[in-house]
This record gives sequence, structure tokens and C-alpha cells, in this order.
Amino acid sequence: MDDIVVIGVGMIPFGKHQNLSIYDMGRQAIWNAIQDADLDPRKIGHAYVSNSLAGPLQGLENTRGQFVMREAGFSGIGVTNVENACASGTNAFRGACLEVASGASDFALAVGVEKMLIGDNVRTLGAITGAASPLYASLGYQFTAGYAMKIKKYMAKYGLSREDIARVVVKNTYNGSLNPLAYQRTPRTLEEVLSARLVADPLTLYMCCPNSDGAAAAIVCRERTARQLTSRILPRVVACSLGSGRLPGTGDTSISTTTLVARSAYEAASIGPADINFVELHDAMAPAELIEIEELEVCQPGEAAIWLREGVTSLGGKVPVSPSGGLAARGHPVGATGLAQVAELVWQLRGEAGERQVPEAKVGLALNQGGRVDTEEAAAYCVTILKR
Amino acid sequence: MDDIVVIGVGMIPFGKHQNLSIYDMGRQAIWNAIQDADLDPRKIGHAYVSNSLAGPLQGLENTRGQFVMREAGFSGIGVTNVENACASGTNAFRGACLEVASGASDFALAVGVEKMLIGDNVRTLGAITGAASPLYASLGYQFTAGYAMKIKKYMAKYGLSREDIARVVVKNTYNGSLNPLAYQRTPRTLEEVLSARLVADPLTLYMCCPNSDGAAAAIVCRERTARQLTSRILPRVVACSLGSGRLPGTGDTSISTTTLVARSAYEAASIGPADINFVELHDAMAPAELIEIEELEVCQPGEAAIWLREGVTSLGGKVPVSPSGGLAARGHPVGATGLAQVAELVWQLRGEAGERQVPEAKVGLALNQGGRVDTEEAAAYCVTILKR
Repeated sequence: MDDIVVIGVGMIPFGKHQNLSIYDMGRQAIWNAIQDADLDPRKIGHAYVSNSLAGPLQGLENTRGQFVMREAGFSGIGVTNVENACASGTNAFRGACLEVASGASDFALAVGVEKMLIGDNVRTLGAITGAASPLYASLGYQFTAGYAMKIKKYMAKYGLSREDIARVVVKNTYNGSLNPLAYQRTPRTLEEVLSARLVADPLTLYMCCPNSDGAAAAIVCRERTARQLTSRILPRVVACSLGSGRLPGTGDTSISTTTLVARSAYEAASIGPADINFVELHDAMAPAELIEIEELEVCQPGEAAIWLREGVTSLGGKVPVSPSGGLAARGHPVGATGLAQVAELVWQLRGEAGERQVPEAKVGLALNQGGRVDTEEAAAYCVTILKR
Repeated sequence: MDDIVVIGVGMIPFGKHQNLSIYDMGRQAIWNAIQDADLDPRKIGHAYVSNSLAGPLQGLENTRGQFVMREAGFSGIGVTNVENACASGTNAFRGACLEVASGASDFALAVGVEKMLIGDNVRTLGAITGAASPLYASLGYQFTAGYAMKIKKYMAKYGLSREDIARVVVKNTYNGSLNPLAYQRTPRTLEEVLSARLVADPLTLYMCCPNSDGAAAAIVCRERTARQLTSRILPRVVACSLGSGRLPGTGDTSISTTTLVARSAYEAASIGPADINFVELHDAMAPAELIEIEELEVCQPGEAAIWLREGVTSLGGKVPVSPSGGLAARGHPVGATGLAQVAELVWQLRGEAGERQVPEAKVGLALNQGGRVDTEEAAAYCVTILKR
């Protein structure tokens, strides 16, 4: 899919939206994307709607995407409801790209919507966990614990301190403070992060992404189609690779699935990890960022904490990581997150990211993960690369 | 997507499978399709998994498709979970076709799995209805009533008798009796259909599709790819069009969305309705068949009951309708139905349908619908045309 570009993106601020339904949020994100694309909405041929939790949390199953599109004023167009847990958003984006690349539609929309703050965090937690693995949920497993164990192991391997992992939050909450669409806009000091309530050792409160409401959308088309409409910068989708966790004992398990999917994305894009200018990561728990940029082979194993300490991954550094603030600062409305990542890549590549702009952003990568990423059980991994 | 063909299909008998999970059923259907295709399964690049009710009925949300593929022995490949209520199956099939047409994968699998007989039909009914419209479900609406009202209106318009609509069941249960994979294999007489328990006037028990467990799968690739592997008949996917119910008051509401989607499919296939040899319909309530073949413009308005009476739509007739038995006889495991329709088209086009074979089958059409098809509210309509 060489010639697919993003012609417009839209998003609403992530956070608490007590008076907005998934339909209200979806409509706003969709119309923000349409206005951004400056496109006649009747040209959109198909919509991919990403939502993960409206079923278990609100009883809205199946054709909820048709309702989202209807409430946005669309009538008659095909709608595909896509689910891949926390990776649903980029999976919907991938669907929109294939829709255009196959010739089925000239313009396709991907929209992610999620309402998590239903006034019952215990129920929300149960739904997220159950979505990943009903068996483990019934055994008391939840995501924070899974990440905590993975991060502890990683810390032990490279002799990292609590300060080393807390520093991710200092960087990302600073980035988030510059992002008007982020949920958490207060920069945190190292001391604040370390002294915050312990959630699951070694993770403190500010290391964990907040349950959030939100929506984000993107519209894609062929480059030559877009060029007839606009002379603006059109970020090209040079890769959108999706993989699943592997069966235990198959292949080389010393290489993570994230690495395999990233390699396939680099190959599709005909680039290497050294060509990546900036990265948006799936830091559901902020310290996971360190593991993830190593898995993406953007830095060497064990190097991530050093890069962080030396400012390489800060906004002014060589490879800024999560300029948006990432999941822990921007918020993580599950089905919307992947499309917020795509929106951030687009804004950065167009040079429209304001105070958090990455200088000379040319190639951006987003990693979106879903399911039990600690054990890879039935998990989904999506690597998207956009290039200006 | 001119050159996409179905290289293999698989299905398990629809019915009660008390000892099989969705994973067990999925595995069997997937491996039946792999064996049918005579394909090295490692060549399959991506899977689209269709399931509608495992969330509300069994707490299996989101990455359940990854579990299905894992239990079938697949490791690492990308999986997209697709939902579109009763139209989920053909929507997954469409995803697999676009996957290949876009060049993202050489071979793609679509599989539909559903477990409805969980020992609590009231809960199953609630889940199906809620999936279509939580609002209407809370008001007491359910599908049988919606279809009953639509069919009553249709009967009044053309002065049809109860015998006229019951005759659909006589035809379809006869077809189903010839299909070893059908749930209901007892042919019913006109008298039996008419004297069966009234469910929602004018619908009697045998007119309503049974809740069912089941799974079905299909593998697609480019024709030139398949030709390197086999010399068998390879049914081509000449159209797979998906649309949604329109907003009230938009466009010409005297034309149904089914008609609009069918016209777009005919255009994509460069054929007309007169070229269709046989049809698989979405007869969740058997008499809906009459409305549907008119909406597909396969026959003229008001002509369907005459065709039925005169045997035009019988197995030996000019345009056999639902040779498999249709939803009411074959059974309707929601997420699997669309892929069972695709499998039936393939078997018919390959001349492998045994006692229910349509003579000289050349072009087959499947109509798959999901959501509130009576009012079109947020409903999904998919028309697939295969050609040998």
C-alpha cells in the first residue's frame, strides 16, 4: 500500500466526559477529521469503527459502529466494527488503509471511541481484564500486576533503579503538559512520581495510565486522490503491520513479537529503525516505554534508560519518545488510543504540534498493543509508520 | 478486487454442540477449510474472525479471535476481530478479500464461530436483541416481532395467504433435509408448518430460525496464486458489497437498502440480477425470503410468492433459493452464518453439493443482514457474488 496517505485527523480531549456518550464523542472526532481534511464527507466510502468496552460496560455490542456513524450524520455507508483490545484503534486504521489500497473505496474513515469512566472503576477494571483473558481475570490477574512483573524483571536484568523508571513519567508528563488534548497536564517531578501511592511494586500511581473517555479519527486515501484536493503535507502510510503473540515454544522466544512485527514494518517501509525520528509508544504503564523502544530496536538492549537519562528521548533529543505524553499522560480510552497515536504522528509530520513539536520530524512510528502483552497470550501488536 | 478467488471452505454441522467451545468449533472449521484448499497453513498471512455473542453470553470479548486462531495452532499471524451482528460472517469474508486485494497478504482466512445454546435461551434472546438495539431491547422489542410486522405488511400489500408464506418452509426444510450440515433435517409439510405453535402472528415455530452453535471458514487468494497450486474450479469473488441502513428521510426510502447494496454488487460484478443462477438468503424468519429476492431484484415486486408456488425457486427450478436450507433449516449461529453462505456458494459452483446440487450453477449470490433489518436502524447489509 505504497500510495496511501492520511488526509485528515481529528480528536477530542481525552479525559472525563460525563455528559458525552460514545456517539457524541465519535461525532466530534469524526467531524474534526473531516474539517481537518477539508473533505466533502459524502466521499467517504466506508468506516472502520474501533471500540473495545461498550459491550461489557454499556451493553452496546455489535452494530454500535453503525450507530456512531449514524449519529455523525452518515447514512447508508458500509461500517465494519473492529475489536483488538487496546490495539483496536490501529487495527481500524489498518482496515481503512486496506479498504483504499484494495480499490474498494476512494476515501475511508477510521474512528475509535471509548467510554471507560462509567462511575464504577471496579467494573471497568474487570471488563478490561476479562477482555484480555477470562481465565486469568477469574484467577485475579489484572494488567498492572502483569506489567509490574515484566518491568521488575527488566529492572533486574539491567540493574535499573526506581529513579530510572520514574524518569519516564517526568519526561512524559512534561510532554503531556504541552498537549492541549492530554488528560493529565500536570508535569510531575521525580520526587512526586516516587512518593506517589504504590499500585503494584514497582509501579506508583503516576506510572499507570488513567481510565479515560475519548475519541479520535483519521481519514485515508490514495496520494494522487488527495493531491487533487490539497497542496498540504500528506503523511504517507509506509507500514501498518499487525501480529499476534506466538504459541509457547514456537520460534525464537528470545525475540519478542513486538520486534518481529516491527521488523516486518521496517521491511514494508524499506527503512531501518535508525531512520525513525520520533516514536509514540504503548506505555499503558509508563516504564514499559523502556522495554518497548528496545523491542522496536530503536535503541540497543539495556540502552533505553541511558538514553532517557541523557535526554535522547526528550522533546529536544535525537529520538523523542511519546511527544504527546503517551498513554500515561494523554490518557488511554482503549479503542481510541491507536487513532490518537496516528493523529499525533500526523500533526508532528505536518509541523503542527505546537509547543511539543519534534524538530524536523520526517518519519514517525506508533506502537499499539492489546491483550496480555506480558505473556503474549492472544495479544495483538500493531506497528504503524508514517513518513512525510 | 477482480482476481480474488476462494481456494477452500470448511464448516462443521450446525446444531447443538454442548461439548464444544467456540475454540473447538473454530479449529474444526479452519482445518476443514485448510484441507479443502490443500494448502500449507503457514502461507496464511492474516485471519479475520467473526463472532457476535461470545461477549454478552460468555464474557469472551475483544481478542477472542486470537484465542480461536491459537487453539487452531496458528502462532503470530495478525488477527482482526470483526463484528456486524448477523452480518459479521460476510464482513469477515470481505476483510479477507480486501487483505489479499490490497497486497497485504497472499492468503487470508475468514472464520465465523458462534455458541448460542448456552442453556439459557432467554439470555441468548436478550443478547441478540441487545446487540441490535439496547434501546429497543429495553422496550421489549425482539426480532421475531420485528420480522412478523414486516411480513404482515408485505402479505397485506400483495394479498398473500398464510399458505403462501408457509410454503417457503416446505421448500427450505426439504433442501435442508438434503444438507448433511444443516441443523433441521426433517422436511415439513404445509400442514405441519401451519399448525405449529404460533410464535408471533403470522410466524409459526418452523418459520423461525433456531438458535444454533456452529462455525464456518473460507480461505481466499489471488487467482494466479491459486492456479500455481491447483487445477480445480476456483469460484471468483466478483462482488462483496457492504452497506448500512439509511437515516430516516435520506434518499428514496421506497428503495430498500438491500436493493441499493445489491445494485452496487451487480455493478461491481458487471452483471445484472437476471444473471444470478441461485441465491442464499438471510431468512432468519423463513417468509422474509419472499421480500428479499424482490429486494435483490431477482424477481419483480409481488412475484416471489408466485415463483415459489410454481417451483421457480425450488432446487429443480430456474433460480433455486437457499439450496442449503437457509437460516431456518440450516440453523443460524450468528457470526458463522455468512461464512456458511459463502461455503454453500463455493460447493454449488464446484458442483460438489450432492443431492442439493443446483444444475449448471455458474453465478451465486448470498445476502447476509445484521441488526434491525425491519427498520434499517443501524443495520448492516452485505451482498456477496461468486462466479465460477
